[in-house]
Amino acid sequence: MSKITIVDIAKMSGVAVSTVSRVLNGHPDVGQKTRERILKVIKETGYVPNDSARNLKRTDAKCIGVLIKGITNPFFSPVIDIIEKEIDRQKYALILRHASADDDEADVALELENEKRLRGIIFLGGGAEQSADKLRQLKVPVVFSTIGSSVIDEKDMADFSTVSVDDRLEAKHITQYLMNLGHKDIAIITEAMGRRSVGHLRLEGYKDAFIERDMPVREDMIFYVDQNMEHFSIANGYRTTQRILSSGHKVTAVFCVTDLLAVGAMRAISDAGLRIPEDISVCGFDGMEIGRYYNPRLTTIKQPLDQISRETVKLLFDIIESRSSHRHIVFPGELSIGESTIKRYED
Amino acid sequence: MSKITIVDIAKMSGVAVSTVSRVLNGHPDVGQKTRERILKVIKETGYVPNDSARNLKRTDAKCIGVLIKGITNPFFSPVIDIIEKEIDRQKYALILRHASADDDEADVALELENEKRLRGIIFLGGGAEQSADKLRQLKVPVVFSTIGSSVIDEKDMADFSTVSVDDRLEAKHITQYLMNLGHKDIAIITEAMGRRSVGHLRLEGYKDAFIERDMPVREDMIFYVDQNMEHFSIANGYRTTQRILSSGHKVTAVFCVTDLLAVGAMRAISDAGLRIPEDISVCGFDGMEIGRYYNPRLTTIKQPLDQISRETVKLLFDIIESRSSHRHIVFPGELSIGESTIKRYED
Repeated sequence: MSKITIVDIAKMSGVAVSTVSRVLNGHPDVGQKTRERILKVIKETGYVPNDSARNLKRTDAKCIGVLIKGITNPFFSPVIDIIEKEIDRQKYALILRHASADDDEADVALELENEKRLRGIIFLGGGAEQSADKLRQLKVPVVFSTIGSSVIDEKDMADFSTVSVDDRLEAKHITQYLMNLGHKDIAIITEAMGRRSVGHLRLEGYKDAFIERDMPVREDMIFYVDQNMEHFSIANGYRTTQRILSSGHKVTAVFCVTDLLAVGAMRAISDAGLRIPEDISVCGFDGMEIGRYYNPRLTTIKQPLDQISRETVKLLFDIIESRSSHRHIVFPGELSIGESTIKRYED
Repeated sequence: MSKITIVDIAKMSGVAVSTVSRVLNGHPDVGQKTRERILKVIKETGYVPNDSARNLKRTDAKCIGVLIKGITNPFFSPVIDIIEKEIDRQKYALILRHASADDDEADVALELENEKRLRGIIFLGGGAEQSADKLRQLKVPVVFSTIGSSVIDEKDMADFSTVSVDDRLEAKHITQYLMNLGHKDIAIITEAMGRRSVGHLRLEGYKDAFIERDMPVREDMIFYVDQNMEHFSIANGYRTTQRILSSGHKVTAVFCVTDLLAVGAMRAISDAGLRIPEDISVCGFDGMEIGRYYNPRLTTIKQPLDQISRETVKLLFDIIESRSSHRHIVFPGELSIGESTIKRYED
């Protein structure tokens, strides 16, 4: 049932692929006997020459690989949409690959490079555990998008590019916003991953806000998501918030390091009979569509995904066409104030 | 910068791919002169033999193509997750392709078949406008998943499989549920697509409910989404509901043909200063996670996506391995009652 290719025909005829191609294209420079042998094989296999032309064309098409960590994170949907359009404008093809949580993205990237005539790779998400040594084996340039330079060792800064917000700084900003509303008992929901993960960087920003105000960082206010579920999911935000509510700690605000976690958190708070924001303020991070339509509307850090996506493709092509060496571009996030945060009531 | 392949080496050496392969694998049956010519080309091009082995292996890997209509519809995320696991259990590789709204999925499928040693194709979404004639050119079996047999002409029923709920019947059920709560002024938000689209089928079910109760179907209560935006998106539900609210019609309930539309509808109703469900009841269709976590929790038809996904892969392999001919499997949906619908108040 599998498709016969020009390579198969060449193998079966005992000639080079180029010889088959010459016969298919009617070139006169192939000997009569060889030509007949090839045409016989073509006839016997039912091989359709038109397809071979398409195959060759496709094989020659220049491609950009986009490697996404996880298959189900809607955060990346608008990013992929824009990247696809930009790559298309450059007359390149897009190859989308997903890496599961267990996959080493570097391995998937190396496989991707072997599969196609790849000119560059864009990494979306993940990035925490990539081995720079493995990635350096790639012959095509790599741009990490929505992942900042902190995911890369200083010594590797010249070998890869990054386009992102400053996760740590923006997390500090939104924590300070909660503090400015009078909140001190601020819990955080994050993931317990390596020191280069987005979850870790945003946790560091949360801590920075406390340290800058000479307030103690309370370890018992740091809540890690369930490792056995999708980390940044609505369901995990729900479950982790239930743990906060049953911890016995006084909590007047919760900073969730992603909007999806925050949606789950808000539902858990409502289900516990508490009001948002009167009893507990909630804020997220990312600026996803669902936060803008949730009830109450979510306070969050809006990432400029349009700009990040466009700049990602622009930078990658600048490198491919030798107009630029590797760079690290940081966009500012925007504090988007919704209905889910309010001034802390005095006790 | 592009990767040299074994085909390139064969071309440049003027020999068959199999000859290059034999040299690489140390077979003694290649003449000294030919061997030296090939090794010289390999050396000059910097070709890495290990990669060629990987290439050949990858080319031989059996694959299942999954073709998704649209790139950003989160409805398919859990479906892809399960399908990926099931295909993996069969030791096949998954190739994911997205078709944009403008693409003819049949064309994308035909391209997909040319690219890889494909054994079967699963269509997710779309389906309305596929040309059966084009699809019949495919040499591998096709299963439409989450799309019912209504998308296919009766004469084509033996050529393709479908696994889905009965969209029309389930839409009738949820409309009847609203009627049983006392609602008569029920608006519907759907898309204006061909007669085989999911939006059309669910609209037919809505009409069936009225017809069965000898109630008039009011055309002015049928609201079509904005064609220039993603049809089944939150933002489109929001905008279309604003049109309902400013239409001047008395409306006590809104049936949105997808949950994403319903989320947008609920936010629009809240923003207009109306209460859900006291002023307007809202229900959706699909049973997406966001509906379960929204505030208020959404009443909807839950599609059994776990069963649909698993059965899709099972059926496809049954056909591939000739244990089954094409079939049409329908699963019942489940009315999931949330907090967004309530008995109509008497005037």
